Amino acid sequence: MATQMSSARRGIATNEMKQVAKDEDVTLDWLLPKIATGSIIIPSNNVRPQKIHNVGIGKGMKTKVNVNIGTSTLNVNVEEEIEKAKVAVKYHADTIMDLSDGGDVGSIRRTLLDTAPITFGTVPIYEAYNFGVEKHKNPLDITEDDYIKAFENNIKDGVDYTTIHSGITKEIAKRIFKVERYAGVVSKGGTITAAWMLKYDKENPYITHYDYMIELAQKYDVTFSLGDALRPGSILDSHDELQVQEMINIGRLAKRAIEKDVQVMIEGPGHVPLNEVTANVTLAKSLIGDVPYYVLGPLVTDIASGHDHIASAIGAAVSASAGVDLLCYLTPSEHLALPTPDEVKEGLIAYRIAAHAGDLVKLREKSIKWDMDMTEARRTLDWEKQLALSIDPEKAALIHGRTGQHPGNNVPCTMCGGACVYIMLPKQRKYEKEEKKLQQAE
Amino acid sequence: MATQMSSARRGIATNEMKQVAKDEDVTLDWLLPKIATGSIIIPSNNVRPQKIHNVGIGKGMKTKVNVNIGTSTLNVNVEEEIEKAKVAVKYHADTIMDLSDGGDVGSIRRTLLDTAPITFGTVPIYEAYNFGVEKHKNPLDITEDDYIKAFENNIKDGVDYTTIHSGITKEIAKRIFKVERYAGVVSKGGTITAAWMLKYDKENPYITHYDYMIELAQKYDVTFSLGDALRPGSILDSHDELQVQEMINIGRLAKRAIEKDVQVMIEGPGHVPLNEVTANVTLAKSLIGDVPYYVLGPLVTDIASGHDHIASAIGAAVSASAGVDLLCYLTPSEHLALPTPDEVKEGLIAYRIAAHAGDLVKLREKSIKWDMDMTEARRTLDWEKQLALSIDPEKAALIHGRTGQHPGNNVPCTMCGGACVYIMLPKQRKYEKEEKKLQQAE
Repeated sequence: MATQMSSARRGIATNEMKQVAKDEDVTLDWLLPKIATGSIIIPSNNVRPQKIHNVGIGKGMKTKVNVNIGTSTLNVNVEEEIEKAKVAVKYHADTIMDLSDGGDVGSIRRTLLDTAPITFGTVPIYEAYNFGVEKHKNPLDITEDDYIKAFENNIKDGVDYTTIHSGITKEIAKRIFKVERYAGVVSKGGTITAAWMLKYDKENPYITHYDYMIELAQKYDVTFSLGDALRPGSILDSHDELQVQEMINIGRLAKRAIEKDVQVMIEGPGHVPLNEVTANVTLAKSLIGDVPYYVLGPLVTDIASGHDHIASAIGAAVSASAGVDLLCYLTPSEHLALPTPDEVKEGLIAYRIAAHAGDLVKLREKSIKWDMDMTEARRTLDWEKQLALSIDPEKAALIHGRTGQHPGNNVPCTMCGGACVYIMLPKQRKYEKEEKKLQQAE
Repeated sequence: MATQMSSARRGIATNEMKQVAKDEDVTLDWLLPKIATGSIIIPSNNVRPQKIHNVGIGKGMKTKVNVNIGTSTLNVNVEEEIEKAKVAVKYHADTIMDLSDGGDVGSIRRTLLDTAPITFGTVPIYEAYNFGVEKHKNPLDITEDDYIKAFENNIKDGVDYTTIHSGITKEIAKRIFKVERYAGVVSKGGTITAAWMLKYDKENPYITHYDYMIELAQKYDVTFSLGDALRPGSILDSHDELQVQEMINIGRLAKRAIEKDVQVMIEGPGHVPLNEVTANVTLAKSLIGDVPYYVLGPLVTDIASGHDHIASAIGAAVSASAGVDLLCYLTPSEHLALPTPDEVKEGLIAYRIAAHAGDLVKLREKSIKWDMDMTEARRTLDWEKQLALSIDPEKAALIHGRTGQHPGNNVPCTMCGGACVYIMLPKQRKYEKEEKKLQQAE
């Protein structure tokens, strides 16, 4: 079957491309060559049963935000995950990933696919892990077949993109204990795969069977999100040999998929000190080319438990301004627990701010109108418009509501009261004008 | 009387310098020349009745965070302001500013000075404005004497630093309506002064009487925080001629104060797009020299009402990493209402994260241990230590508490459950070691 990429390569504009061109205010003539070469992707599984709102991810597109949800073996509450998916859609997540590895992950995935009519990603190895826990009663007793079966299950359900940890080889896994790392390996999929390779002294199944997976991905038009199993888990480990070696491997793997009309994006860290964030993007783009880059934050410090959405929104904004295309959010509960629906909202809003701050640099002409309109609403004390233009109209209205004033009123808020700058100076200006008139009348 | 600066110039180490040297882990030999030249300041009013914990602000010191509190004419609730001051102290604000302009501002100030035993700043023109409202029944009917009286009242109460808007001249004020600005003038003190100058066609009293104020500041050892009356109020106005002209003026004024042993810092924006944040710091340091730089955020987008603490923490972190010395926080209620005590906490925590993220760049050797300890606590699943090391132990404990596990347990959290990376891979490693032993025993 045709993929977005193969269609673009033949000059055929799909409905998804038309949608993206419209949303991003670009022409199809501009868009198609980008999809053909892989600098822009539109993850869109051929067999996804739900009609969804597709997005374009890549150079020249607005920065997108992904929301992670899903169960763990210690917390299977499907109703709550459904609620989180609804929150993600309500507050304008561009993509969503179901990371469930506890409970009936297949059924949960299909339920969430139904709940969230947006671009949907998963991490098949979590289902393989789930086979280990449920079927084999030992997570590491999973077989190569389990690895592949999990991938097949995911894409046959219509998942638009899947994280594949094929950058970590057996050779690198063996170096993990030789390299001095403060935080070790913190990617769940990477850890499972590393532990599995070490246990069986076998190569990573997602490397061994990479060609077969490309074949399937081509058939379903599933986008590969090449995962960074060795991303740093502490700012102290940022850009060490493990991370950079994996990045090199991923670059090679990306090319093999793109050659076969399979769309690809690349995953990045994680934990990166502020002065290395731009360098990280530069390095990734240099090693991998203009393949869309998808980062997790990054967190610019490790000490912000309870507020990791803020610590990572800092890294996310700088990343986006430097060329990152998709931001994976973190919530306030990162490193502590699975998030609540409210925390999903908090994380998502923080990241939409970061994405927009990045777009004001990357795509200023296309992004500035929002700020311009807000500035005008502030200057004219148009509260209704200010609240409506806020990234979070609900919360803004709640806070402003404390002033006891109707939002439509042309009055100051409690912050400055009578000393409101938009009353003081225009008043004086009016006074001057009237005085001038009086003088002229005299 | 001696000021910190005059003492340093004579090679005398004050108690405040000894305190700062200890807190920042520097020697007095290193510190004194910095205070002598003004690259580090220790705001510390001679007559402040309260014993306080002083801080050093400037190059080579950790980035400090300021919390703004205070009434407005529309909201005078002294009990709540006291509560906010307590929150600021509890969550480790380095400095606090009372911006009250509603109610009995003198009495409120003295109460808050008593409540917060930390470096304390005010904006005297807000008291002058209050004279206008209360005494003259018209805010702009304030006199030159009111301007000066307000300054005197503030420093005689023991305020450690005062914002003085002496960078805005009558000439610039006249240009305000000629220059195309999206957001106009958004500094309250700047607006009052501009409106006053235009109304009376008189020069800014804080320029006319600058020498007298230097004399008083020298006597009380009050630090000038030279305010940016013309800071941009929208990212669209960033670095326009008004802002930069004022910055030039402020640089000149700073030198005049420093010559007379008066400590000075410089205030900066405000609203700055992400790609101009570092340039802003570079420009300020270039025009003004190594005088401590104190910025308000900056916000990197205008659309984040309800979450401005996050939108500005992004700018604050980048600012700090680029050399800003003191960050003035914003709360979620910025642009909407006066903050609640909870919002004061939220803003302060966001800014402490930003300050630390900046310090990891500026002062890596001195700042990294915190992250190192957290990384170690995570790697060893030491939850008690993780929670204690969090920027907000209270909130971290609340979130982790949802897992129903005692924080001391060596168990995973609900986020990854059994797939916890610190259980999976070490388990495999132990398995390998045991197997090796078995093989050797065979």
